[in-house]
Amino acid sequence: MSKYRVAVLASGAGSNLQALIDQVHRRGVADIVLVASDNPRAGALTRARRAGIPVLALAPRRGEGREGYHRRLARAMAPYRPDLVVLAGYMRLLPREFIGQFAPIINVHPSLLPAFPGLDAPAQALARGVKLSGCTVHLVDEGMDTGPILLQEAVPVLPGDSPETLHARIKVQEHRLLVQAVTAFARGQVKPGPKNESEEVAYAD
Amino acid sequence: MSKYRVAVLASGAGSNLQALIDQVHRRGVADIVLVASDNPRAGALTRARRAGIPVLALAPRRGEGREGYHRRLARAMAPYRPDLVVLAGYMRLLPREFIGQFAPIINVHPSLLPAFPGLDAPAQALARGVKLSGCTVHLVDEGMDTGPILLQEAVPVLPGDSPETLHARIKVQEHRLLVQAVTAFARGQVKPGPKNESEEVAYAD
Repeated sequence: MSKYRVAVLASGAGSNLQALIDQVHRRGVADIVLVASDNPRAGALTRARRAGIPVLALAPRRGEGREGYHRRLARAMAPYRPDLVVLAGYMRLLPREFIGQFAPIINVHPSLLPAFPGLDAPAQALARGVKLSGCTVHLVDEGMDTGPILLQEAVPVLPGDSPETLHARIKVQEHRLLVQAVTAFARGQVKPGPKNESEEVAYAD
Repeated sequence: MSKYRVAVLASGAGSNLQALIDQVHRRGVADIVLVASDNPRAGALTRARRAGIPVLALAPRRGEGREGYHRRLARAMAPYRPDLVVLAGYMRLLPREFIGQFAPIINVHPSLLPAFPGLDAPAQALARGVKLSGCTVHLVDEGMDTGPILLQEAVPVLPGDSPETLHARIKVQEHRLLVQAVTAFARGQVKPGPKNESEEVAYAD
């Protein structure tokens, strides 16, 4: 049986990508066959190159819409035939057509969804004064962090936290959950759940 | 120094009240000086009578508005001079005037707020397919479960959960957090927090 093929989309520094490189790709759980970015200067691309993973740096063109950009991205990604697409800090909403072509697509978000969707979730959590936040791995649909939830982990908010210190604490769990989710997909352990069109992830060890 | 005086408002069976009777009142941490209900048949009233605690069963009158009802309730409660009012399954929104007269008032809610405010929070959580829910103790303001958060605890959602089985698992933590919060108030350990107009609860023990 050939290796499970994972493509990663990232717009930023790529710390979640690094966790996947170290704990999924290098351990042979699955192959990261491509790291693509809408930001040619994304740190994620450097991390991928360093690990010998093909990269695709595709900046949106002036006046190119979300649909047009993602059609172009889809054409460039298709030859890599990913079994799973992982959003690891990818900052654009995906159009329906892209999702239909590449599903399953998963995302990791730094809050306990449905609380604090969208940008700056740790800052949102601090502004509301919650005592627990966390992170969520979910299937991607056309909404902003609205897809079926696969895994969640709680993280305490501590007195004196800034958005940065809170997010750093959440990041540790993001890495863990993302590795767990990709591992479960690679092992064929993600089954359609009985309700809510959600999925059950069988815990990998 | 005289005992810290707690009044409890409850509309239902009163399992949260029972936790306060067993772990706060009977242990001498604070005195529950009154249990009031808008529902004369509330199980909470029976639990209070059994524990020798004064009860106040005050049903709304036909055509009496929320403001009018709570003015009447406030007049009946005032002679008990509570230092703290606890909503333990009280199903009405409190008007500003009532809150101003009796603050601090705390509530326990069966979700990790701001997720799933309002009625049937465990059913809302199952419908969204979250993997973690929990409970929140918060200061009461005029909104629906919108006040500053004091304590939160996460509770896992398990495969096959119904709203009832999930709520039963959450209830265990509601009892624990509510006892912890009332104990912290009684010991003078709740201090105004440095931000978000929230409060910090110093953990009891």
